[in-house]
Amino acid sequence: MKVYDVEGFPNPARVRIALAEKKATDKVDFISVDVMGGEHRAPVFKAKNPDATVPCLELDCGTTISQCTAITEYIDATFEGPSLTGGRDPKSRAKVHMMNLRAENGLLNAVGDYFHHATPGLGPDLETYQNAEWGAKRKSVATETMRYLDGVLAENDYLAGEEFSMADITAFAGLAFADFAKVDVPSDLANLSVWRQKVAARPSVAG
Amino acid sequence: MKVYDVEGFPNPARVRIALAEKKATDKVDFISVDVMGGEHRAPVFKAKNPDATVPCLELDCGTTISQCTAITEYIDATFEGPSLTGGRDPKSRAKVHMMNLRAENGLLNAVGDYFHHATPGLGPDLETYQNAEWGAKRKSVATETMRYLDGVLAENDYLAGEEFSMADITAFAGLAFADFAKVDVPSDLANLSVWRQKVAARPSVAG
Repeated sequence: MKVYDVEGFPNPARVRIALAEKKATDKVDFISVDVMGGEHRAPVFKAKNPDATVPCLELDCGTTISQCTAITEYIDATFEGPSLTGGRDPKSRAKVHMMNLRAENGLLNAVGDYFHHATPGLGPDLETYQNAEWGAKRKSVATETMRYLDGVLAENDYLAGEEFSMADITAFAGLAFADFAKVDVPSDLANLSVWRQKVAARPSVAG
Repeated sequence: MKVYDVEGFPNPARVRIALAEKKATDKVDFISVDVMGGEHRAPVFKAKNPDATVPCLELDCGTTISQCTAITEYIDATFEGPSLTGGRDPKSRAKVHMMNLRAENGLLNAVGDYFHHATPGLGPDLETYQNAEWGAKRKSVATETMRYLDGVLAENDYLAGEEFSMADITAFAGLAFADFAKVDVPSDLANLSVWRQKVAARPSVAG
């Protein structure tokens, strides 16, 4: 099994953390994609992944899977260990997917939209369409989502309840992207700060 | 179990089709939300669903679940019948989630962004932020996604392979929204057209 990605980028980090949580990092070959050189948009890569994004999982049978949530579903169902997607309980599954989508749309993708639209992003060769006003709007959504997540964490150990899940991975990657893109995390969000330190200390993240 | 929604809207349709596929429509009480009157943004509804969206599932224990994918995971894991989310096979699960996200982000949400940003949408009281250029960009993404899905359907009976799934429901709702928002479906997409007729004829859709 191969993962096409770039070390240090926020979405690739989600899959690397998921693999590490399942103690399966050594079951995968990582293939580095030259995103800064546009390799992810070349026909040979788009034949594997029409989304033209990293990460992308390639199974030994040749099937390719993009989208972090889909890749995490694969990893979670393939390798042993505590479930990252809520296990088999319908309510747990639903809460993980709901919170994962809130963290993805409201935080990680919102920061991404700010970065790619309202800053130089990855540079003029890659940022071929920018809409600065949209980027600024999405920055405000990211900040609102941080405040929302802080409220959730006032009542729960993790974003989907008492267990660490895919939703935490997504939000953690979103905050890392926020730091990189210089989107401030409001300093009064104490629950978010405590949770972030707790996630950062997990072996899957701290290494 | 209750579903807060509005009949005829695209995202509510996704959950209604999922319930009908599982023959579980009569297990749910539908509560109509006055979206045109802004009820979904009032504090009493946002206490149930911070996303301020319909549909929203409320379980008998009081837990509320928003986001169609999360609600569909709940429905699929709760009621018997063929799986809408890929069952227990890791590869099937991953393909359903990947295609569902492509249909959601690239088609249904893209049409929604066009409708809410580049047309009068739901009217001035509800469309409090519009970015027409963004809406136009997203319309072109929707059209590109239709063409991509047509290519997928040249090689597969359904979007995630040989079985009908959540991804088909999402794309079908996306095309219905496209009709409503007057986003043309290119007439040369024969595979998409055949698939759409096939889905429209399912008892869960045709009623």
